[in-house]
Amino acid sequence: MTDIQEAELSSQRLRGASTFQLLHWMASGRLAPSRLCAVYEEAIADLNEALNAFVALDKTAARDAAASDQRRNGKTIIGRLDGVAVAIKDNIDVAGLPTALGLAGRAARIAESDATVVARLRSAGAIILGKTAVDEGALGTTGTTANTGATRNPHHPEFIAGGSSAGSAAAVAAGLCSFAIGTDTLGSVRIPASHCGVFGLRPTVGEISTAGMIPAARRLDSVGILARSVQDLAVVLQVLDAYDVEDVRSRRRRVALSPPDWEPGRLRSGFLPNLASLGVSPEVCSLFARATDALGLELGERMDADFSDYDFARVRRAALLIMESELACELESDLDDGAHPVSARLRDMLGFARHKSAVHYAAADRMLDGAVLKARQLFGQIDVLVLPTVSQGPYRIGETERANDADLCSFASVAGCPAISLPMGKLESGLPVGLQLVGAPGSDLRLIELAEVCASTLDATPDYPVLPPR
Amino acid sequence: MTDIQEAELSSQRLRGASTFQLLHWMASGRLAPSRLCAVYEEAIADLNEALNAFVALDKTAARDAAASDQRRNGKTIIGRLDGVAVAIKDNIDVAGLPTALGLAGRAARIAESDATVVARLRSAGAIILGKTAVDEGALGTTGTTANTGATRNPHHPEFIAGGSSAGSAAAVAAGLCSFAIGTDTLGSVRIPASHCGVFGLRPTVGEISTAGMIPAARRLDSVGILARSVQDLAVVLQVLDAYDVEDVRSRRRRVALSPPDWEPGRLRSGFLPNLASLGVSPEVCSLFARATDALGLELGERMDADFSDYDFARVRRAALLIMESELACELESDLDDGAHPVSARLRDMLGFARHKSAVHYAAADRMLDGAVLKARQLFGQIDVLVLPTVSQGPYRIGETERANDADLCSFASVAGCPAISLPMGKLESGLPVGLQLVGAPGSDLRLIELAEVCASTLDATPDYPVLPPR
Repeated sequence: MTDIQEAELSSQRLRGASTFQLLHWMASGRLAPSRLCAVYEEAIADLNEALNAFVALDKTAARDAAASDQRRNGKTIIGRLDGVAVAIKDNIDVAGLPTALGLAGRAARIAESDATVVARLRSAGAIILGKTAVDEGALGTTGTTANTGATRNPHHPEFIAGGSSAGSAAAVAAGLCSFAIGTDTLGSVRIPASHCGVFGLRPTVGEISTAGMIPAARRLDSVGILARSVQDLAVVLQVLDAYDVEDVRSRRRRVALSPPDWEPGRLRSGFLPNLASLGVSPEVCSLFARATDALGLELGERMDADFSDYDFARVRRAALLIMESELACELESDLDDGAHPVSARLRDMLGFARHKSAVHYAAADRMLDGAVLKARQLFGQIDVLVLPTVSQGPYRIGETERANDADLCSFASVAGCPAISLPMGKLESGLPVGLQLVGAPGSDLRLIELAEVCASTLDATPDYPVLPPR
Repeated sequence: MTDIQEAELSSQRLRGASTFQLLHWMASGRLAPSRLCAVYEEAIADLNEALNAFVALDKTAARDAAASDQRRNGKTIIGRLDGVAVAIKDNIDVAGLPTALGLAGRAARIAESDATVVARLRSAGAIILGKTAVDEGALGTTGTTANTGATRNPHHPEFIAGGSSAGSAAAVAAGLCSFAIGTDTLGSVRIPASHCGVFGLRPTVGEISTAGMIPAARRLDSVGILARSVQDLAVVLQVLDAYDVEDVRSRRRRVALSPPDWEPGRLRSGFLPNLASLGVSPEVCSLFARATDALGLELGERMDADFSDYDFARVRRAALLIMESELACELESDLDDGAHPVSARLRDMLGFARHKSAVHYAAADRMLDGAVLKARQLFGQIDVLVLPTVSQGPYRIGETERANDADLCSFASVAGCPAISLPMGKLESGLPVGLQLVGAPGSDLRLIELAEVCASTLDATPDYPVLPPR
């Protein structure tokens, strides 16, 4: 063994490492799960007050990590993720912890059992560190609307982390966990991934069970992954991806997900002809142009993706009506909870659904069906759709939430497609923006392969852990 | 050749034959497609005024049949159904004919192209005879509410044929076509199949494309088959069953439908513990008991299917709200058409949806998701659910429509399951009632195999063509 291998891995290095790297260090005996867990817990103790990424910690984490030490020592690991430590968005049940959903009225509602995704993580050996901050009702793109206060962007504490999986993205960027679980209904994994400069995957609808997640809009809901490397997305997806009898949208498959099988150089990449007309800021447009120029050969043949028959704003409003209607169902008792009133913002959004008729809902749902057909047609012509993740970079906490924040993410959501956000560079403010890849349903692993090539070519990934300038 | 084979097949015999039998006669050269088509056209001319099964005839049928003669003679058939003649429910597009949906205001709306199901029939060589009567807006269980008047039951002209695929069922029973296409949202294939004493299949949702069908409730809509034998259901299903990029609920499959693979004698059949409490009439209960006793061994192990957590009436009302909301979208311009007003009945039903909020729709849609999970749990314990198709037999035209007519059919609809109705015997009135078999999604071919065994054991199939006592 060389000195380098023998040296203890520094806390800083562990917090910046990918899950993939951590698993290799554990497999080779260089890293004990309990050490990793202690590093995260120390970092959380040090930084969470400033970042507001975690809203609850699992007190059994250290004990679970010690059990993993034993398994690692005895070479009796129970699964692919034995010993790494994960953060769970606070709209997903973890037994023994509250599922508060950013609402004061739910802060004492302890979940009795693990959501399917949490149970799968545990059975693969992962340690659950705690729950992460989420916009109030998981309905928001800023990460600032929870009763627990604003989550701060690790790149700059005066800026938003993005939402609604705010705490998950911030915790990954700041090196407070190995990877994190989020949920993405209309962009809630990808938007904070973009704002915090991490990798975010929204899988094909139904791939990861949503049983045990508080539904936002069931036809759009997807449990996703936030991580510090593309490989991590693949490793974790393959642990979590399974049929679940409890999830209506889960399907039994006779063969596994399509393996990556793109012929390099044969790729057909679709681009939106006019990003500026969709409200994308000049700075994001130019960053996107620079990134995709750099990716020239990797993206194969460039084609115009025809969205002339697709109205981003109308589809977003239709999707929002469905989300607001379902949330109004789900949060019925919360809206009546006088002791813990929800915000006027949330009350207004859900009230909107009460004033729309069932016929409006049906019309909105049909518009979303139209998007599914649009995607089928589109992915007959192209292999991947390439676009920015967001129209604007992160803005200052306290600025008004922007209505079109989720527009570029909504297409993959309404069409049920997998999508990845990866860092593509930094704005003048020093804050990151993501590049988004969207593929046909079921092409998750191909999309991950392409994201890996892009990430390696762009070399735009920040050094983790990201810590704000002091 | 013997004399029997040489003798010309009588019109009566042709009209009573199954599609399966007709195809064999055509293959052996005993029957020319144009002869068959002429027999049907003559019978339609003779009987349709009394039955009101067809609402429009395709004038190209004789020409298409002559072309099929040529192919049959030259042994150059284009598909499995070359030369048989089919009737299409009038909520499905046939190019050149109106799709009137039982509404006067749509009687002049000529379809420009064939629905996917019609295109598949044509490309398999089937001749399209015409369009069949449907309840107004396809929303009804009696077949009496269309602007074109009541469809009559071939067993007795004063009784309803059942709806909404009224004309398709009556045409099959009376021998006016080889088989017919219907649609089933909450029982609209099975109910008239039961009332008219024919076989009806509602396939797994998504198996047969609904593109080109006027949507009633997209998550419930299924294109189905009405026929004079069980084998016909299998033959036609295998022609029609295919992925269609234009149908959101259609899915690409890597392998074909599950083949029949039940171990005879190993079958687990589920029965509802108390049919009377669900409003099933004593006469239907006793017919059902007699039929299932006769099927004793064929149905294997009998088990109670636990529906104590399932409220048939509430689920029906939830499904109806979704159907009414979607129809109110679809029929928006019809409701405003002063020149051709819709009935007060339809206006009231669709008006109901306008007075319910988007939140009510979301709650109803969730209740239907609950039924999907219920079915998954149920079909983990049993292989097939056995129940009557309807709670009461056909009643007299003019009697009030019964609110719970679709209750026994609705479970398969809301759960997306395949279901078959087959004749199980006759009531004192001389009118038939169907036995219903419901299986897990994708088990269509297994269900057909079981229906074949049951039909053969019961021997309760009427002699076709069914003609009312004169």
